[in-house]
Amino acid sequence: MIRSDSLVASPQPHAATLMARYENVRAQTEALCAPLEVEDLVVSSMPDVSPTKWHLAHTSWFFETFVLAEHDPSYRPPDPRYAFLFNSYYVQAGERHCRAMRGLVTRPTVREVFAYRAHVDAAMRRLIQRIGDDAAHPAAGLIELGLQHEQQHQELLLTDIKHVLWTNPLRPAYHPQPDGPAREVAPLAWRQFDGGVAWIGHEGDRFAYDNEGPRHRVFLERFRLASRLVTNGEYLAFVEDGGYSRPELWLSAGLATVQANQWDAPLYWERDAEGRWTEFTLGGTRLLEGAALADPVTHVSYYEADAFARWAGRRLPSEFEWETAARGAPVEGRFVDAGRFHPGPAAGSSALQQLYGDAWQWTHSAYVGYPNYKPSSGAIGEYNGKWMADQWVLRGASCATSQSHARVTYRNFFPSDARWQFTGIRLADGGVAAETH
Amino acid sequence: MIRSDSLVASPQPHAATLMARYENVRAQTEALCAPLEVEDLVVSSMPDVSPTKWHLAHTSWFFETFVLAEHDPSYRPPDPRYAFLFNSYYVQAGERHCRAMRGLVTRPTVREVFAYRAHVDAAMRRLIQRIGDDAAHPAAGLIELGLQHEQQHQELLLTDIKHVLWTNPLRPAYHPQPDGPAREVAPLAWRQFDGGVAWIGHEGDRFAYDNEGPRHRVFLERFRLASRLVTNGEYLAFVEDGGYSRPELWLSAGLATVQANQWDAPLYWERDAEGRWTEFTLGGTRLLEGAALADPVTHVSYYEADAFARWAGRRLPSEFEWETAARGAPVEGRFVDAGRFHPGPAAGSSALQQLYGDAWQWTHSAYVGYPNYKPSSGAIGEYNGKWMADQWVLRGASCATSQSHARVTYRNFFPSDARWQFTGIRLADGGVAAETH
Amino acid sequence: MIRSDSLVASPQPHAATLMARYENVRAQTEALCAPLEVEDLVVSSMPDVSPTKWHLAHTSWFFETFVLAEHDPSYRPPDPRYAFLFNSYYVQAGERHCRAMRGLVTRPTVREVFAYRAHVDAAMRRLIQRIGDDAAHPAAGLIELGLQHEQQHQELLLTDIKHVLWTNPLRPAYHPQPDGPAREVAPLAWRQFDGGVAWIGHEGDRFAYDNEGPRHRVFLERFRLASRLVTNGEYLAFVEDGGYSRPELWLSAGLATVQANQWDAPLYWERDAEGRWTEFTLGGTRLLEGAALADPVTHVSYYEADAFARWAGRRLPSEFEWETAARGAPVEGRFVDAGRFHPGPAAGSSALQQLYGDAWQWTHSAYVGYPNYKPSSGAIGEYNGKWMADQWVLRGASCATSQSHARVTYRNFFPSDARWQFTGIRLADGGVAAETH
Amino acid sequence: MIRSDSLVASPQPHAATLMARYENVRAQTEALCAPLEVEDLVVSSMPDVSPTKWHLAHTSWFFETFVLAEHDPSYRPPDPRYAFLFNSYYVQAGERHCRAMRGLVTRPTVREVFAYRAHVDAAMRRLIQRIGDDAAHPAAGLIELGLQHEQQHQELLLTDIKHVLWTNPLRPAYHPQPDGPAREVAPLAWRQFDGGVAWIGHEGDRFAYDNEGPRHRVFLERFRLASRLVTNGEYLAFVEDGGYSRPELWLSAGLATVQANQWDAPLYWERDAEGRWTEFTLGGTRLLEGAALADPVTHVSYYEADAFARWAGRRLPSEFEWETAARGAPVEGRFVDAGRFHPGPAAGSSALQQLYGDAWQWTHSAYVGYPNYKPSSGAIGEYNGKWMADQWVLRGASCATSQSHARVTYRNFFPSDARWQFTGIRLADGGVAAETH
Repeated sequence: MIRSDSLVASPQPHAATLMARYENVRAQTEALCAPLEVEDLVVSSMPDVSPTKWHLAHTSWFFETFVLAEHDPSYRPPDPRYAFLFNSYYVQAGERHCRAMRGLVTRPTVREVFAYRAHVDAAMRRLIQRIGDDAAHPAAGLIELGLQHEQQHQELLLTDIKHVLWTNPLRPAYHPQPDGPAREVAPLAWRQFDGGVAWIGHEGDRFAYDNEGPRHRVFLERFRLASRLVTNGEYLAFVEDGGYSRPELWLSAGLATVQANQWDAPLYWERDAEGRWTEFTLGGTRLLEGAALADPVTHVSYYEADAFARWAGRRLPSEFEWETAARGAPVEGRFVDAGRFHPGPAAGSSALQQLYGDAWQWTHSAYVGYPNYKPSSGAIGEYNGKWMADQWVLRGASCATSQSHARVTYRNFFPSDARWQFTGIRLADGGVAAETH
Repeated sequence: MIRSDSLVASPQPHAATLMARYENVRAQTEALCAPLEVEDLVVSSMPDVSPTKWHLAHTSWFFETFVLAEHDPSYRPPDPRYAFLFNSYYVQAGERHCRAMRGLVTRPTVREVFAYRAHVDAAMRRLIQRIGDDAAHPAAGLIELGLQHEQQHQELLLTDIKHVLWTNPLRPAYHPQPDGPAREVAPLAWRQFDGGVAWIGHEGDRFAYDNEGPRHRVFLERFRLASRLVTNGEYLAFVEDGGYSRPELWLSAGLATVQANQWDAPLYWERDAEGRWTEFTLGGTRLLEGAALADPVTHVSYYEADAFARWAGRRLPSEFEWETAARGAPVEGRFVDAGRFHPGPAAGSSALQQLYGDAWQWTHSAYVGYPNYKPSSGAIGEYNGKWMADQWVLRGASCATSQSHARVTYRNFFPSDARWQFTGIRLADGGVAAETH
Repeated sequence: MIRSDSLVASPQPHAATLMARYENVRAQTEALCAPLEVEDLVVSSMPDVSPTKWHLAHTSWFFETFVLAEHDPSYRPPDPRYAFLFNSYYVQAGERHCRAMRGLVTRPTVREVFAYRAHVDAAMRRLIQRIGDDAAHPAAGLIELGLQHEQQHQELLLTDIKHVLWTNPLRPAYHPQPDGPAREVAPLAWRQFDGGVAWIGHEGDRFAYDNEGPRHRVFLERFRLASRLVTNGEYLAFVEDGGYSRPELWLSAGLATVQANQWDAPLYWERDAEGRWTEFTLGGTRLLEGAALADPVTHVSYYEADAFARWAGRRLPSEFEWETAARGAPVEGRFVDAGRFHPGPAAGSSALQQLYGDAWQWTHSAYVGYPNYKPSSGAIGEYNGKWMADQWVLRGASCATSQSHARVTYRNFFPSDARWQFTGIRLADGGVAAETH
Repeated sequence: MIRSDSLVASPQPHAATLMARYENVRAQTEALCAPLEVEDLVVSSMPDVSPTKWHLAHTSWFFETFVLAEHDPSYRPPDPRYAFLFNSYYVQAGERHCRAMRGLVTRPTVREVFAYRAHVDAAMRRLIQRIGDDAAHPAAGLIELGLQHEQQHQELLLTDIKHVLWTNPLRPAYHPQPDGPAREVAPLAWRQFDGGVAWIGHEGDRFAYDNEGPRHRVFLERFRLASRLVTNGEYLAFVEDGGYSRPELWLSAGLATVQANQWDAPLYWERDAEGRWTEFTLGGTRLLEGAALADPVTHVSYYEADAFARWAGRRLPSEFEWETAARGAPVEGRFVDAGRFHPGPAAGSSALQQLYGDAWQWTHSAYVGYPNYKPSSGAIGEYNGKWMADQWVLRGASCATSQSHARVTYRNFFPSDARWQFTGIRLADGGVAAETH
């Protein structure tokens, strides 16, 4: 049996709360599909992208496999072959379909996948009823894990469908372009932090992934963080300064990636017929001018974030600097709940802003386990642990993240060349000895 | 202007005939989609395969571009961007979408593509009315070309969707499996033909592609053709004799292909959990036993056809031997019109059978132009001429070909490793001097 | 035992003649290495290229395997592992080293390979002595086959080392540039030939490969051949007319190859720092001007030869047209024996010239077996038969061919994109009915 | 001018010392070539491997470019094109030859490359004389950098030629197999270390690369290190326990690498004809039995080291744990100076052994810059800084490292799948609170 206690430390849900949260999260996934056509839900436009249809089914398979199979002996899957089709990467949960072929599977149809969801939902509702107020019930932690998992896939669903729509030469929009008045960008300010020993990682009753612990100490030298994210306007200055063709600004692997893929700007930036820069958003294509310049730059790889920081004479923060700076700040920001589906401008303040929402923030911390990290046992242990190589930690959250999914110890991770997520840049440096803060 | 006279020699349609033929061919395309779900129409399961949706649109684009643009000044495309999306390979007809990405384009939706067809049909009907009985009207030949083109795409639509459905681990069927009583296979007989000078190629008023002429002479040495196609049962003997692992039976490139792709049987043959051979058909998966063994083997590459022939102590025919033998025989057989969507057994006779329908027959004739061949001028000239390298001629027709599309001079062509078409094997040899026939 | 009778029809050598020929051919191979450094003999600059060292060893392995192993029971190989290293593609002769890794094998050293040759030579001399004047001795035909084989590898040795030297940014020369006075190019004249039934293929006592028979009849329509090869100057006009960027001139696969490899001229043509065209030859790099323009163009692929012919309003000949035209002409020309190692200009005459030597001539005949072709039995049968797919026949001979290796029925063959051989272009067309010749 | 002060902190050489060191290092490079044939020096057996000839030239180019070009105005390179051929990756030092083609360049010959070395040596000797005792001379630091650079290439020269020799099916040895009596392996003991704040990184007058600083503090939780490296015998138990086919032991990317490359053991382990494990060493192939089992396992990737540690219930150390544990220990061990060219067994002691020599030790620390790291300015700054992504730090030194090249702060780095270096495994764990040490 899966040790749910290793996943969460006593989430202590009450029946009504858990049921409400289950309904909310599941409904949100389906709501995100509303603007799409059946055809949109089928395809995968690149290896990183999964079809919307697959996200809908996989998140249900997760409950089926890790919750219902353990805790509802009467549960029967609607089709035993779904386990093969909708397992993602859980080797210990059985054979699975080749990821590269997900976008080729036209059946089950979209309608059948929604029926699959309904089938799982019915069983889950019965189970949640049965658990009642027994917060110690071993399924309770797994249900919360399944909901957090589904929230992660909601974010992927949006970033994946954005890539699908952009791959189409017609460049269809997902939703209407949000109007927004041009806004003065707040000047970049610097927040200084003393060094010293700091506690890092999750502790307490609230849910967290296993990779957010064990809680432990690190030593930080003095550092500063930028008050807000780097804007499109600031990044455009880098582009126009020849940033992409100056080898001295780039990591060696970054330069090779830029050249092999002929990158000359972030993903989704393109020049129009008149040579003006445009940016494809979930609201369609817009000119990079006016209000658009105040929005944070997004869809940049680690290589680009690192090169931009070097060009700016700064560096990226470590994940420990970020967590230390964010400790205590409220988990607020422009989340998916805002319905904008794109990062927006910082407020006109020199306070530390945009810690959450808008865009994930690349750190120069490689994604490895904390001291004495042990993954959960069984297939669930594959959730985080087996990815601890060749990736970087990103902190914060994005405009595609649910607010209830964000927290100060959250460790998102992607490889150096990933660009299709809402990834952005917060600058750091070593600060100044004499400066007060 | 496109020289339609180079495409067809006076097809002489009458208005009613042409209209009826137009309606029939266009309706047949849509009828072939009836058993499919919207999701099925969107994807491409390998580089050779186009989405059904694309076939529906491309055949309409063909009329739009090569007929309406020339002969209906009032015609307006519903979306000017469709020309980019639905041009296949006509370089001289403008920029076009990358073939490899056809399966990633979710918009226009299926519904919109059907609307596009209706838009083109309306204009075409007006034009055909206007042409009336003027058989010499320059559009008449182009319309017939467009219909022949659409018939070719009907065959591709079926072979493509077969691959799409097979790629799905659920192996959904396109239509119900046809019942058929087990039948005794006619023993293979041999039909001998004297050599000498023979006339080859198209002549006369009926439609033919430019690659079927000019009519010219060849000299044939004495030869024999097998009376019918090679059966699944005969091919199975080759497989079980270790045919795929005996290098001396294979062309060098064939052996390399077999090893690189781990081929051990025709495409769509698979062993089931008990190790028995099965065959995926448009009717679903069936065991290779009983009646199935009498059906012609299909979905074999040139390499496999050639290796089988060597194993059998024979060879493949040349296209000139085939045309000479078929000259005068009626164009009859198991075409798509039969609705079986799979090759069927030969009748119990020693006559020359299965010349048309069932499965295309690989020849050992490379696809090159006949002496003094000149392609049509303009973009239409790209239809056949630019493919004259690294392909083999196939003769006959298949269970996915329309009867009205087949003729004795027809030259189909595919590269050595192509297997997703309904391709089969007719054996030949040099005959025996003394034998009477 | 290998049926040598299938290889040659009574070569009838006398002992002294055979010995002299053996010594000459073997010495010529080593003489071709004289201008090279030890380092040059080791590497392979692309998959088609074998190291010089490998050619030296493989040609010796051929005698060891197909002659000595059969006909000298006392023969012992110096190292049993050489059979693994130096077998090229004879599957039936045992396991062999991966072709792609030939250029990585530093041992045996060059010195050891020469010792291997000497070891084989000593045994071969004893065998040839023993055969004496017994022309019917079964080894006699195999020895001639081994010598013809070695002559083929001499040509490859030169074309391979040319590629190796060119791959080096220092562009070292193989031998001093031959001086040559600028020469007026003879105007292109046309030789017309009537059609009719013609006999094709080898017959008689002299050596020929199995693919040169069986002798058989073909029917030819009337045709014309150009009197000489296409020159650098003529090809330059095609290049400067935008030939490489005009899709309508190219086969579809040719255009894809041009674009994928960014070809804009024949292999070994490059622009210098001033933008002038140069050509790398075995004598080093020279400007494409003056005398160089009169030399035949060489190192063009089938795709380029075909596109040039289309641009010129002509076509390539068939191999049957070539053989019929060349039948009866003396086997003369600029062979490797001339020591120029590069094609040279045609004489100022309108006669049919440059049939042999200078450059192999692409035909539009696919390389398939003649009617009722049967390869030799056993491993020797792999020499020609298993390559009969996806290649074109070239006729004539080149400046890297030995005169004693050339003959009117010789069928050389390479795939559509091969450029590293001395391949050139002779134009053909359908002639004019009324024209006398 | 290059800021040599950023590279070294006052190396304070005296003329005689520097001259002696220069002569020693340069002579050592050439001595390592003595067992090789000319042919061996030319090729590259995989993308990571450079030809020996290239190492000989590149290390000379380094002195030419970074020392002589700055500090000897009279210096003339023997061939201006060498700068193109022998620059490795210094983008700011000019255009350079494609790395993938290094093994195809047969000229300059080996003899010419040795002449190039002599030419550089002559100029370097004059310069060192001129510097005399001026330790503050700006060239002094650069010369030391060039020597450290050459020592790194000596190690690569050995690991590269090992791969070249192994690629040859004849498996030639570099030097005679060292005899060694079977030895009892010391049982693995554990050394425990308290946590707390530790100083990390280089400080002081001795040479260090820029990536070894700035000196800074880290916080370590309590940890333990294994007393010696993992042995072949211990690793064999992992192999025979099915280690390579148990997904739960592997990082996801590691499992993909194992499967894609069909790894089932360390690089250079192979089964012989009888199925017994063998290991290819620079002394040739030996059975993995007896004394060989006591030697440290080597040529394992990070993925394998990590999977082995998981199988053993331990983990890899961090680079900070390693440095803290090694701080103060003498820099002793089985270096290249020992002439064994292969790791050897630990002494029978429970002390912390094999910190240096034998095999580099993978850490789970990603290779990133220390807090406020700044690379040297100019092309020299590319030495370390631009590689700080997607690599792991290795600590210690190997049997191919010079003793004078090793130090406690040295940070070697390779990507997760690199195996051709002498890389090994030291286990770590979190220790036990109550345990004394």
